[in-house]
Amino acid sequence: MFITPSFKIYGGVAGFFDYGPPGCAVKQNVTQLWRDHFVVEENMLEVECCSVTPEVALRASGHVERFTDFMVRDVKTGESYRADHLLEDALRAAVRDAGQAADTARDLLPRVGDMGMAEIDSALNQFGVKAPGTGNDLTHTWAFNLMFKTQVGTRGAKEAYLRPETAQGIFSNFKELLYYNGSKLPFAAAQVGTSYRNEIAPRGSLLRVREFTQAEIEHFCNPNDKRHPKFDSVSDVEPLLYDRATQLAGLPAASETLGAAVKTGTIANQTLAYYIGRTYVFAQSIGLDVSRVRFRQHLANEMAHYATDCWDFEVQCAHGWVECAGIADRSTYDIDAHATSSKVDMRAYEQFPEPRNVDVLTIVPNKKILGKVFTKHAQAVINALNTMSECDAVEMAGKLRAGLVARLALDDRHVDVHPGFVTIDAGKKLVHGARFAPAVIEPSFGIGRIMYCMFDHCFYTRDDGQRTVFAFRPSVAPVKCAVFSLVNTHALNERAQLVAASLTKKRLVHALDTSGISIGKRYARTDEIGVPFGITIDHTSLQDGTVTLRERDSTAQIRLHMDEVPTVVKALVDGDLSWTQLQAQGVSSG
Amino acid sequence: MFITPSFKIYGGVAGFFDYGPPGCAVKQNVTQLWRDHFVVEENMLEVECCSVTPEVALRASGHVERFTDFMVRDVKTGESYRADHLLEDALRAAVRDAGQAADTARDLLPRVGDMGMAEIDSALNQFGVKAPGTGNDLTHTWAFNLMFKTQVGTRGAKEAYLRPETAQGIFSNFKELLYYNGSKLPFAAAQVGTSYRNEIAPRGSLLRVREFTQAEIEHFCNPNDKRHPKFDSVSDVEPLLYDRATQLAGLPAASETLGAAVKTGTIANQTLAYYIGRTYVFAQSIGLDVSRVRFRQHLANEMAHYATDCWDFEVQCAHGWVECAGIADRSTYDIDAHATSSKVDMRAYEQFPEPRNVDVLTIVPNKKILGKVFTKHAQAVINALNTMSECDAVEMAGKLRAGLVARLALDDRHVDVHPGFVTIDAGKKLVHGARFAPAVIEPSFGIGRIMYCMFDHCFYTRDDGQRTVFAFRPSVAPVKCAVFSLVNTHALNERAQLVAASLTKKRLVHALDTSGISIGKRYARTDEIGVPFGITIDHTSLQDGTVTLRERDSTAQIRLHMDEVPTVVKALVDGDLSWTQLQAQGVSSG
Repeated sequence: MFITPSFKIYGGVAGFFDYGPPGCAVKQNVTQLWRDHFVVEENMLEVECCSVTPEVALRASGHVERFTDFMVRDVKTGESYRADHLLEDALRAAVRDAGQAADTARDLLPRVGDMGMAEIDSALNQFGVKAPGTGNDLTHTWAFNLMFKTQVGTRGAKEAYLRPETAQGIFSNFKELLYYNGSKLPFAAAQVGTSYRNEIAPRGSLLRVREFTQAEIEHFCNPNDKRHPKFDSVSDVEPLLYDRATQLAGLPAASETLGAAVKTGTIANQTLAYYIGRTYVFAQSIGLDVSRVRFRQHLANEMAHYATDCWDFEVQCAHGWVECAGIADRSTYDIDAHATSSKVDMRAYEQFPEPRNVDVLTIVPNKKILGKVFTKHAQAVINALNTMSECDAVEMAGKLRAGLVARLALDDRHVDVHPGFVTIDAGKKLVHGARFAPAVIEPSFGIGRIMYCMFDHCFYTRDDGQRTVFAFRPSVAPVKCAVFSLVNTHALNERAQLVAASLTKKRLVHALDTSGISIGKRYARTDEIGVPFGITIDHTSLQDGTVTLRERDSTAQIRLHMDEVPTVVKALVDGDLSWTQLQAQGVSSG
Repeated sequence: MFITPSFKIYGGVAGFFDYGPPGCAVKQNVTQLWRDHFVVEENMLEVECCSVTPEVALRASGHVERFTDFMVRDVKTGESYRADHLLEDALRAAVRDAGQAADTARDLLPRVGDMGMAEIDSALNQFGVKAPGTGNDLTHTWAFNLMFKTQVGTRGAKEAYLRPETAQGIFSNFKELLYYNGSKLPFAAAQVGTSYRNEIAPRGSLLRVREFTQAEIEHFCNPNDKRHPKFDSVSDVEPLLYDRATQLAGLPAASETLGAAVKTGTIANQTLAYYIGRTYVFAQSIGLDVSRVRFRQHLANEMAHYATDCWDFEVQCAHGWVECAGIADRSTYDIDAHATSSKVDMRAYEQFPEPRNVDVLTIVPNKKILGKVFTKHAQAVINALNTMSECDAVEMAGKLRAGLVARLALDDRHVDVHPGFVTIDAGKKLVHGARFAPAVIEPSFGIGRIMYCMFDHCFYTRDDGQRTVFAFRPSVAPVKCAVFSLVNTHALNERAQLVAASLTKKRLVHALDTSGISIGKRYARTDEIGVPFGITIDHTSLQDGTVTLRERDSTAQIRLHMDEVPTVVKALVDGDLSWTQLQAQGVSSG
């Protein structure tokens, strides 16, 4: 009962899964380890924002307009299909057939991901693509938004969506977070929470679902300084890097230290590389096989237009490489977008170590002339000139100096500014700091996908494939310890209950089994859900108070006193003591 | 930044709040303490289910039809109002006016909560109620469902709702949970998760919100045996009980031991009382003032028709008593409802200690006659008779014995069964056990409301009200320890960073402040967010490695070696060491 389809008794709905007791426990453990590794270690600002998001915020972020898949429908059955998938299938078929259209198809194939709606539509027509199975005609291509929509309130209800990512909640709180952080950059905020996507084709159990847990970090920094103060701590980490050039050359991923990768420019900056390194260490700590982990750089056409660089954390499973996290340099896009839409100043201020003497260009309104030309509107023009941005001022100065007319935006219209309407004052100014929109480096993890890959890597069989085992790290295992009475007698069961109670006191999740069935069968049952340790109470226990402690993977056993059990198991689970160390100091009976 | 309105930069939407860093940390701590106290302590089966819920499941639970508020609208402005609130206001006014209608109004007032839509509508007419403010006419009363609606999928999208409570996910998984528990009752399942209600009038910050965290327990047991194996552990707990009779008599709540309350029947059964006791202990452990905590029994008209008994866990705050949890005996309603709707057998089986000899009544089809009467449909009738429930069989036997005709439901229609069509066989049978739908005892907690009350109880001021303090328990506090360098010098800051790093190693959330501003101001700042301990590094620290450790509420200080800091602070936070004990063994300098 790790996972089960939600509302299965009603037939369920594709893409929704519930975590049963062991799945829920593993998920909590992985999430807590993630939090310890990233949030606590870096003193990140963790927040918890609402999932229901007003439309205005997701319009600002671009999700209302662009978080879509292109679709077509079978005109007769009404069945919907992803337009890009049908087109790719058709192009591949055309290449295989090697007919007249093969060359065109070969050219188009790698570009499908970049195509706009009109282009996909026309290519579907050009290749005469029909509905799969039925061969019926297809409708025109249309855009389907992947967000779940709802309404808030009663009358004049507000349109809202379930968030498709947790990030927007952090961005909208940026100003307060900056203040909370003493107005200092860089800092990182984090959020673990549920996101929702109305996926068209949910598949692969936890791989593409409609409701899922994300763990996202938004690292805010000066766009001109993406160094990371702790980069040295990961510069020797040497993961498999699968950069753009390597992919295009058809070569396999290669190991490289992060220090070298930043030096050669393979990874755009230290902060991106720092999170790649930390992610690699995290993968190792939760029991992923890091020889089957790689970081794949996005190709130019995969990235959003504003992104500077992006690396996917990918894990190889039985069914191929699975994207478990994306680590992206999103430039200043997010904060710019929300600042523009909300009209809130979301810039950070950085004081320079030394004041700087900089060129400044000021447009000084010639009030007399402006008054004559614009009469009652003159004051509005003067205000607009006084509050114009430096960038606009430079542009206007350029035009006026060239003897051209410049346009000036007022609240509701534009006016023409001729040379002579203003004086251009170019001088020097002592500047103590600068305001700027921060850049965002975003490591975004899918907890369900990480679990899927961990299940894949931890699973093995023994006894000629008859017994299955999950080799979960003790910190990840849903149940830390099983407690057995060797046979079902009152005296042994009583002792077992005492041991169980002592584990509860240390908050160690355990299972108590006094069924008295064969101990081998009981070990096998706990191996199946990955319980790392088993305690057995036998007749000797009644005499001297000792019990056996068995380790899951080696199946080795040692004897120790029952009073030591909670402390020893806790140390093993917390990683303060290894099994080998324990064996060296204990008395083996295995 | 404990809480802040969601998407404030866009003006926000009423009833949605984000938790900023300290709020998020307190919430995680309270949730984890809840989990340790209830889930880990009792080995409950914790699950995590999806929020998006198909309509069929919420139709089965009754939410689609009955999770509504009655509304009216101002015919001119379109403004919506709760119909029951307007009616209550009007009735109170009529009582005050002491006119003709005063007696009727006095009679109706206590019944408003029980009224159906038609009755409210007619009472609004009878009292000529108009829209507040405008005095305009009101529309007819209509029912507004409080669930957020959405659609899943593209074509023929399925209607779904955001769950209004986490419980339904547990109920729908009951069969698998029972199996996971070795088919044994009683057991409890638990879930912590987000629920959503489109409240008409969100108010009181965290008190009535539209998106909130619930922590729910569903304790499944035999409806004929609601004893609890651990009841003895709470029978001496003596909370304020505010039972139905006391409320109706207008008396205040009184302390009573849970043992006595169960014995006298004030609390319906041991399991209800057990959870009341555990909730009381929990309240104490997170720092609520238990003299301002009571358990209020629902009046008959507050309870759902199927509920046996229900007690609200209420906490007194500045603004009155706040309902923070409900502990309800929901009888077998939930499992019955889902079993009926899903046609899945969700009964549990209980083996009797000894087989029992019970009366059984069997309806034996008279195949010959049935064949003649029903010809080709005879087999369907025979099947229906063979599979009829014992209850239906008893009913049919009664009718036939009285010479009447009984109706029998087939898949698509009914047929009449006359005396003689069947033989009634009444005998004895040795029965080894019984199948039954389990009863559910449900303690359901609102995490946000508990936090609201805890903030209220923990808040105090000192220095003549100039300084505010949150007296959070160390286990609850968002930041466990602040680390200060007394003055801003490289040597002291370096030491402070070493201490901070040693706290990170123990996963102790801390704040590092090397600003060098007055230490009193810095203590005050950390008191504001309830940091229980402060470490100050001063010049002596550079000589002998000792630092001061200050406790927030007493403001007392002791000196200890910096190497001891992480262990001592951890022990204080985990409750393994009290401040008094530490003072007794340490050297005080405060």
